[in-house]
Amino acid sequence: MSSFWSRNISLSIFGESHGPAIGVVIDNLPPGEYIDLEKLRQFMARRAPKKDGTTTPRGEKDLPQIMSGLLNDRTTGVPLCAFIQNTDTRSKDYSNLARLPRPGHADYTGAMRYRGFNDVRGGGHFSGRLTAPLCFAGAVCGQILERRGIYTGAHIASVHGIHDDAFSRTKVTKEDILEVREKDFPVRNDAQGEKMKEDIRNASHGGESLGGIIECVTINMPAGVGSPIFEGLENTIAQLIFGIPAVKGLEFGAGFQVAEMVGSQNNDPFYIDEKGHVMTKTNNHGGILGGISSGMPITLNVAIKPTASIAKPQETVDFRAKTNEMLQIQGRHDPCIVPRAVPCVEAAVNIALLSHMMDYPHF
Amino acid sequence: MSSFWSRNISLSIFGESHGPAIGVVIDNLPPGEYIDLEKLRQFMARRAPKKDGTTTPRGEKDLPQIMSGLLNDRTTGVPLCAFIQNTDTRSKDYSNLARLPRPGHADYTGAMRYRGFNDVRGGGHFSGRLTAPLCFAGAVCGQILERRGIYTGAHIASVHGIHDDAFSRTKVTKEDILEVREKDFPVRNDAQGEKMKEDIRNASHGGESLGGIIECVTINMPAGVGSPIFEGLENTIAQLIFGIPAVKGLEFGAGFQVAEMVGSQNNDPFYIDEKGHVMTKTNNHGGILGGISSGMPITLNVAIKPTASIAKPQETVDFRAKTNEMLQIQGRHDPCIVPRAVPCVEAAVNIALLSHMMDYPHF
Amino acid sequence: MSSFWSRNISLSIFGESHGPAIGVVIDNLPPGEYIDLEKLRQFMARRAPKKDGTTTPRGEKDLPQIMSGLLNDRTTGVPLCAFIQNTDTRSKDYSNLARLPRPGHADYTGAMRYRGFNDVRGGGHFSGRLTAPLCFAGAVCGQILERRGIYTGAHIASVHGIHDDAFSRTKVTKEDILEVREKDFPVRNDAQGEKMKEDIRNASHGGESLGGIIECVTINMPAGVGSPIFEGLENTIAQLIFGIPAVKGLEFGAGFQVAEMVGSQNNDPFYIDEKGHVMTKTNNHGGILGGISSGMPITLNVAIKPTASIAKPQETVDFRAKTNEMLQIQGRHDPCIVPRAVPCVEAAVNIALLSHMMDYPHF
Amino acid sequence: MSSFWSRNISLSIFGESHGPAIGVVIDNLPPGEYIDLEKLRQFMARRAPKKDGTTTPRGEKDLPQIMSGLLNDRTTGVPLCAFIQNTDTRSKDYSNLARLPRPGHADYTGAMRYRGFNDVRGGGHFSGRLTAPLCFAGAVCGQILERRGIYTGAHIASVHGIHDDAFSRTKVTKEDILEVREKDFPVRNDAQGEKMKEDIRNASHGGESLGGIIECVTINMPAGVGSPIFEGLENTIAQLIFGIPAVKGLEFGAGFQVAEMVGSQNNDPFYIDEKGHVMTKTNNHGGILGGISSGMPITLNVAIKPTASIAKPQETVDFRAKTNEMLQIQGRHDPCIVPRAVPCVEAAVNIALLSHMMDYPHF
Repeated sequence: MSSFWSRNISLSIFGESHGPAIGVVIDNLPPGEYIDLEKLRQFMARRAPKKDGTTTPRGEKDLPQIMSGLLNDRTTGVPLCAFIQNTDTRSKDYSNLARLPRPGHADYTGAMRYRGFNDVRGGGHFSGRLTAPLCFAGAVCGQILERRGIYTGAHIASVHGIHDDAFSRTKVTKEDILEVREKDFPVRNDAQGEKMKEDIRNASHGGESLGGIIECVTINMPAGVGSPIFEGLENTIAQLIFGIPAVKGLEFGAGFQVAEMVGSQNNDPFYIDEKGHVMTKTNNHGGILGGISSGMPITLNVAIKPTASIAKPQETVDFRAKTNEMLQIQGRHDPCIVPRAVPCVEAAVNIALLSHMMDYPHF
Repeated sequence: MSSFWSRNISLSIFGESHGPAIGVVIDNLPPGEYIDLEKLRQFMARRAPKKDGTTTPRGEKDLPQIMSGLLNDRTTGVPLCAFIQNTDTRSKDYSNLARLPRPGHADYTGAMRYRGFNDVRGGGHFSGRLTAPLCFAGAVCGQILERRGIYTGAHIASVHGIHDDAFSRTKVTKEDILEVREKDFPVRNDAQGEKMKEDIRNASHGGESLGGIIECVTINMPAGVGSPIFEGLENTIAQLIFGIPAVKGLEFGAGFQVAEMVGSQNNDPFYIDEKGHVMTKTNNHGGILGGISSGMPITLNVAIKPTASIAKPQETVDFRAKTNEMLQIQGRHDPCIVPRAVPCVEAAVNIALLSHMMDYPHF
Repeated sequence: MSSFWSRNISLSIFGESHGPAIGVVIDNLPPGEYIDLEKLRQFMARRAPKKDGTTTPRGEKDLPQIMSGLLNDRTTGVPLCAFIQNTDTRSKDYSNLARLPRPGHADYTGAMRYRGFNDVRGGGHFSGRLTAPLCFAGAVCGQILERRGIYTGAHIASVHGIHDDAFSRTKVTKEDILEVREKDFPVRNDAQGEKMKEDIRNASHGGESLGGIIECVTINMPAGVGSPIFEGLENTIAQLIFGIPAVKGLEFGAGFQVAEMVGSQNNDPFYIDEKGHVMTKTNNHGGILGGISSGMPITLNVAIKPTASIAKPQETVDFRAKTNEMLQIQGRHDPCIVPRAVPCVEAAVNIALLSHMMDYPHF
Repeated sequence: MSSFWSRNISLSIFGESHGPAIGVVIDNLPPGEYIDLEKLRQFMARRAPKKDGTTTPRGEKDLPQIMSGLLNDRTTGVPLCAFIQNTDTRSKDYSNLARLPRPGHADYTGAMRYRGFNDVRGGGHFSGRLTAPLCFAGAVCGQILERRGIYTGAHIASVHGIHDDAFSRTKVTKEDILEVREKDFPVRNDAQGEKMKEDIRNASHGGESLGGIIECVTINMPAGVGSPIFEGLENTIAQLIFGIPAVKGLEFGAGFQVAEMVGSQNNDPFYIDEKGHVMTKTNNHGGILGGISSGMPITLNVAIKPTASIAKPQETVDFRAKTNEMLQIQGRHDPCIVPRAVPCVEAAVNIALLSHMMDYPHF
């Protein structure tokens, strides 16, 4: 099972970058949920390439067609299948990949795994295009959560060392989330965003690519959702987040900073707020204790590596002939996938959280 | 399902800290595998409290009794059940937890999740004691992997900012792994280890606790194991690593450092070594590309938060009466769980990797 | 999860009878398997309506389009998605179903389950059309098994009390299986088949429908495949067979006849045959003991109820208005689905057995 | 995974007949459910051997010890582990099984599956003793269902052709279920029960064993529980029922009789009863349509083969030496396991139905 996932909700993602189509089947969605297709299209558009020089010029429309599971814009309760046709594919760009694996890509590991039978054109099933069905599923789950007041939003926390303003860990509003969601370049501080874009364009011109960090927050998750040991919110979110290509790290709340803290710094003091709710004064725990939501915002950071496909010549091998070789990658690639990965992170978190909310007695 | 996990191998972890017993059932182990019970006991001993002032003085023997699945020291192929009796329990220490949740603990979230019916004594099912059955399972899986040449070893990378020597990311030997495994305090640089121990004892005397980072490496994993999207090695390892209480972050290879890199730095150039093997000159990818092993060492770092139970008075609430309260935690607690978490990290990685190796045609 | 199934192989079946398309995603097929698309089409054709008056006149072409997972007619190892467009749909026939449930159909239970949001046109996701993707998946799995010598074949054992010749339980050849597979009306004794067809046409003219039994056999399954308790061959086959609409019973080997036997009759004596193989003289155990294959043919019978949609007026209710009503079903329906269910039974068995063969060390 | 099962509730059954203990872990039970331990003991006692000559004289007390998951007789919500020590074991009776497989038993198939490493003493993990943990789990699930008014009861429908009075398929009361549950020999018609017992004792004296049929019914299941295709009530019940050793057939409602019916006979007419409920006049569908409960009683029959272990000499083989041999089985065996299998069938149905009820919005 590479591309199946099941936890109250089931996902099946299929497709190869240069095959006829990619898509997703989502099973066990609650019946009768209204899906706003225009909002869904907007979610997908956030993942689409932009015209500002920070993304690939490949013209991916990626309009999903819904094949089942939706009637009169409401979920029927049976599998919802969405389908995205592959149109703007130029397969000749990838002709030598079967021999010369691109450093940082899954070309070599994929050939070993599938004994040379996998479709290498455009990265095949390893392509970043496969995050489009993930986004579709996450957008659907997100609408169901938002109807219950649970909002998830992400932004570019940093690119190549240029930092955006972080979310407050204790007080994030729905407006904070919606504000960044509507931007073409998802940062909270637009001045910093301009510096990032400049840096990305420079990298692109220099044949390079850049990495970064995405911060994601979820608000209004009720306390008491999740489970200890293997079925905690962190376990589930982690399993899905590492399904986004290029993710190399994940931390919740204070994350790796906890390693330098003492207990009294890291422990978040409880207090009763003016409405009588149990809150914590700080939120180093990132809204999750023992795998279970505390009612505080769920916060996490995701590390995204620089796009592996760069124009600079690179050392590689012919792994069949066992010779050292140089490789010059052609084709159209994103100089930095962090902006396009922002909705992917939200999508993964939405899916994870809806799957856990379906265990919640008051869902 | 909090405590079930299934992926070729199935695990069921049960027990509460102050109940009669804790344990684990492991299903679908390959039949006929010799299990060296003395080595298994040694693995468990690495998780046990030490006499050097860095751990809890609670005398946990934690000798597992095997109830099924092993005959003449070989796996029978049917479920292997191990059982650890709880003996040195002092339940009165925890009498007020049901009202006053400890900051940084799952007392509050557990009460919300289980509507007050969970056993809070000693942390119940959330107790760090439940990592003993995890270690048992990981030790069994580790022996099966080691028989095929695959070794996993971890060490304390840092405690409270004091750093051990890192493993090389490209060349780690079996001897490197075994050397640190045999130490009472699992560091590679003993001088740095002494500084850590001193720091931990000081924290303990001051009513504090410390966090840290664990580095883990696996060698000799063949290339081609794992899958893209949801069933990659990273996804599976992440799902299990976040099952260890106190983990707040996880990164593979260069991890969060990728965020500041450019593509040509981060991409690992391929080359053919003197034996004709495909290798990479650097290993920022941590041995995994597209969810699949590359044959390079699998490397990861895990952030461990300071023990939540500290002697210092802390702010909390009575979440039923909705009042703010002060809490002074009694009882015996580890001032730093990083040393004892080292075999837990190895265990989680062993389980994840064996589950994937069972998909490998040449296993 | 209604329509996901996962056991080494994963299946996701989607679609509604009158929606844009139905289909299936199959994950974790072994890479590099040659799929003969013409043979696959022939398998699907066995499920298609016939021109002989025994099936619905609805013109279902049901040609599957493959969207992913196949390259140069070989499995790539990543999800294989097949897609069948719905063309000949006449939705007005079903306009009153939302109020007046058809006896013997899932109209009422579906409305309760999905709170009225499911698509009732043509039976929606409950339609027998959804066995087309099941057949597709089973045909793919069957080709992979047949390449290893494992053949599964089914035939109509009886319709409305008219019996075909049963397979021998101890000696079935590949030729026995292929012979019946090539027939338009899948019986071993064509004279009996003619009587069945006559009976079906008579039922059709009288506004009635007929039930029957399907016998299925698998040969050359090696001994030692399967597991006790929940993961036996019987458990897996049963879970899939009851996924075919209209199945009301399943028995293995001597099945319900064992209830009248004594032990010495029912126990199958072992012997060594001339080639040195362990065999049994009789095969009341149907090739499975303790959930595990014995090497003898795997034999099973499946009871199929008469098609629920009949032309005769029937008593029903308006379950919203809570009134008793009469219903006259319009539309085009099979007077007997037993012939078309024959490949469905084979498909379910193929999927179950391939999923278990993938655990077999010598696969 | 032989002995894990997971569907909202997770089960892990472990143990071998002559090992230290057998048991079960049940995960994800709802928290706060009161478990009446005396009723639980009574359920287990129904499976225990009797003194009336119809069962094995082996003295199995099988008192389960609860190791976790229960506090003050209420479920805590975390894994409930029950443990049954093996005491009255006489391993020498089985010394030659490793060479000479018993006809009708899993000795040969188990040896092939586990390559000779499984524990053959007393049947090992294949022993009927492993139904004790299944009964424990089913008894727990049954108490949770009965608190919501859902009662499941089974009886011996026939032994060796001697028939008990069947339950009405349309009207079964809680009293009907409880009446038979309290009997030592679970039949509705005691005169027929005496004939069965006489027949069983005769078989026992003649070195023989007998098979039979168990009928099971569930009342008060609300309409709308279950799902189409792979996750219907029938699929789940079937997967669990075939986990009981010796089961060779399963049918729902009219079962195999549907094969001889015409549609107007088999279709169950709907009507509105005096309370305004949707009912069916007959119940050939056995309370399940399209995998989903209709609100009518869920009815099923299970075929149980004669005990494989009989005293009469039987033909077998030495499967290592490849020679034909005669076998005389020693030891203490049930001449008919049908009476003891009655609570096992109830247990399997209880587990299946609770797992589906947990999907039900009003649970």
